[in-house]
Amino acid sequence: MTEPTDALSRYPAESGFAWPAEWKAHRRTWMCWPSRLECFGDPGRFLRGKHALAHLARTVAGVEPVTLAVRAEDAAEARLATAGKAEIVEMPLDDGWARDIGPTFLLGSENALAGVQWNFNAWGHKYQPYAHDAMFARHVMRAIGAREFAAPLVCEGGALHGDGEGTILITEQCLLNANRNPGLARADIEKILGLYLGARKVIWLQGRFSDLETDGHIDNIACFAAPGRVILGMPDLREHPDWEPVQDAMRTLSNSRDARGRRLEIIPLPQPGQRRLSWSGQLLQASYVNFYLANRAVIMPAFDDPHDDNARDLAGSLFPDRKVLQINALDLVQGGGGIHCMTQQEPAP
Amino acid sequence: MTEPTDALSRYPAESGFAWPAEWKAHRRTWMCWPSRLECFGDPGRFLRGKHALAHLARTVAGVEPVTLAVRAEDAAEARLATAGKAEIVEMPLDDGWARDIGPTFLLGSENALAGVQWNFNAWGHKYQPYAHDAMFARHVMRAIGAREFAAPLVCEGGALHGDGEGTILITEQCLLNANRNPGLARADIEKILGLYLGARKVIWLQGRFSDLETDGHIDNIACFAAPGRVILGMPDLREHPDWEPVQDAMRTLSNSRDARGRRLEIIPLPQPGQRRLSWSGQLLQASYVNFYLANRAVIMPAFDDPHDDNARDLAGSLFPDRKVLQINALDLVQGGGGIHCMTQQEPAP
Repeated sequence: MTEPTDALSRYPAESGFAWPAEWKAHRRTWMCWPSRLECFGDPGRFLRGKHALAHLARTVAGVEPVTLAVRAEDAAEARLATAGKAEIVEMPLDDGWARDIGPTFLLGSENALAGVQWNFNAWGHKYQPYAHDAMFARHVMRAIGAREFAAPLVCEGGALHGDGEGTILITEQCLLNANRNPGLARADIEKILGLYLGARKVIWLQGRFSDLETDGHIDNIACFAAPGRVILGMPDLREHPDWEPVQDAMRTLSNSRDARGRRLEIIPLPQPGQRRLSWSGQLLQASYVNFYLANRAVIMPAFDDPHDDNARDLAGSLFPDRKVLQINALDLVQGGGGIHCMTQQEPAP
Repeated sequence: MTEPTDALSRYPAESGFAWPAEWKAHRRTWMCWPSRLECFGDPGRFLRGKHALAHLARTVAGVEPVTLAVRAEDAAEARLATAGKAEIVEMPLDDGWARDIGPTFLLGSENALAGVQWNFNAWGHKYQPYAHDAMFARHVMRAIGAREFAAPLVCEGGALHGDGEGTILITEQCLLNANRNPGLARADIEKILGLYLGARKVIWLQGRFSDLETDGHIDNIACFAAPGRVILGMPDLREHPDWEPVQDAMRTLSNSRDARGRRLEIIPLPQPGQRRLSWSGQLLQASYVNFYLANRAVIMPAFDDPHDDNARDLAGSLFPDRKVLQINALDLVQGGGGIHCMTQQEPAP
């Protein structure tokens, strides 16, 4: 493993930084304006994706500040669509998934803010170009004066979920994929996550999930509701291609203890009852697990599905101190990701 | 263990008998007319319970024959309420939960029918008298000429679920309870279930469930949807008293293999979102797991709850070849049990 290239040449965890849970207070949410037509397949769908993103930005802006990164040539469009509710900053972009390309923010002692730039290769070289997106985290950290760390790991923010207390959930399908980290073993990755995020326990989900766009990003599969509590998306039919990997995940989670030695509670979240195809003929990745925790709110996707109400109600019971804001995410997921993929929290010191 | 008292003095499993799964073809459903006012607390509630039972009997009678056991003095009332749709047979009764007091029917070679009479002590001496109910299984077997076995185990039918292939699900809370089998260890009970039902693998759920009326009958907690597939009722809130035991059950099931060495799939079934109290001030045991598989049908309870539709839909997807008949069971569960507790299948040879 190479040494960090950063000024003080120490790893973040050694410098007292750690990754706060998403449910902790945010200073703002970072988002990006959709910038790659290819994701959406045609201009009409691209425009509907932008509308959906703008609706999401306006919704989040109701509970915390939103900073929306946008290419210079799209600034007027983005400003119009967000109606003054989001701060617009011009940055070079190739695509637009703030979760995956943004920094994973860390907090340290004396309210110090830092961030990790992962080595971004467009989900295993699935799109070209990606040089701007690979530098996006660096641009964001520089814009706000956060201390910058670059981790020697090909990864995206959506590939990681953490409990804020040292436990991290990831999938083998993504992190061990030959298109990302062919030279690294599980122990290497665990070491990097320990040094950069403060992880003391990494829980690996096995199995091959149907989301081949991201190669099984955890943020479509499972997340923490609190330390010791994991929400696991449940396909409603055995015929669903994710049925077996989700059963495997349930076994793994049942048998795991977190960084503090706690057993995990598992909260099954029934996934949509309808299976739809995306415009490109893939199984549409419509996952209720892809919600976002903003300040005092849960931003929960809806998919015009009979299970939408149940997902909303479950979020309400899991997060009784938050209001559940449910917004339709069908036009977003046609572009390859959802609400969580489109957002990245900057923690409040 | 005492030897069987039956004619051929061999245990059922040694004689080629085994317990067919509930989803196999039935010759009929046995039910009992509610006979113990004390269960329902007052005459009005008792009458509503009888109405609900009659509605259940008429519903099941739409898909397979129903034989309804009734005290002589209640025969006219029962006949009126079931409108000619159920066969009425007069038998002495103390109470009326056919699942718990009826025989657990076995099929053997050459279409032989047998049944097991468990040692019934009214759920650990909770009600008096119970001498008639303790003989009910014997009366039923005699009425239809089934070969009779008496098992040296205090048990009720609702305490057992099986996959028809040698796997049995039970709870420690019930079978190991001092009010039932104080002298028996787990291994003793497993041996009896092997000899009488043909069990080759017994899966024990631990934990203390809130259903103290039955001391944790499995038929309110979990059941098989098919060999290798277990439906597990999920309380919707961590504050529910069954939350922890259900989490324990998930772990146990995740780590278990069945009699044929298969891992178990776990299908979470969200339980009612409302928690109600029974007339006696206990947590009302309203469980969707307490459904009944009749011929080509699933008889699924409803509880005037927002999750009713979901339970119906899940049953439809789990049993695509069956029609789901959903009937309101609130007036039944006020008496201490539900649809499954009120029914006992006689298999078709």
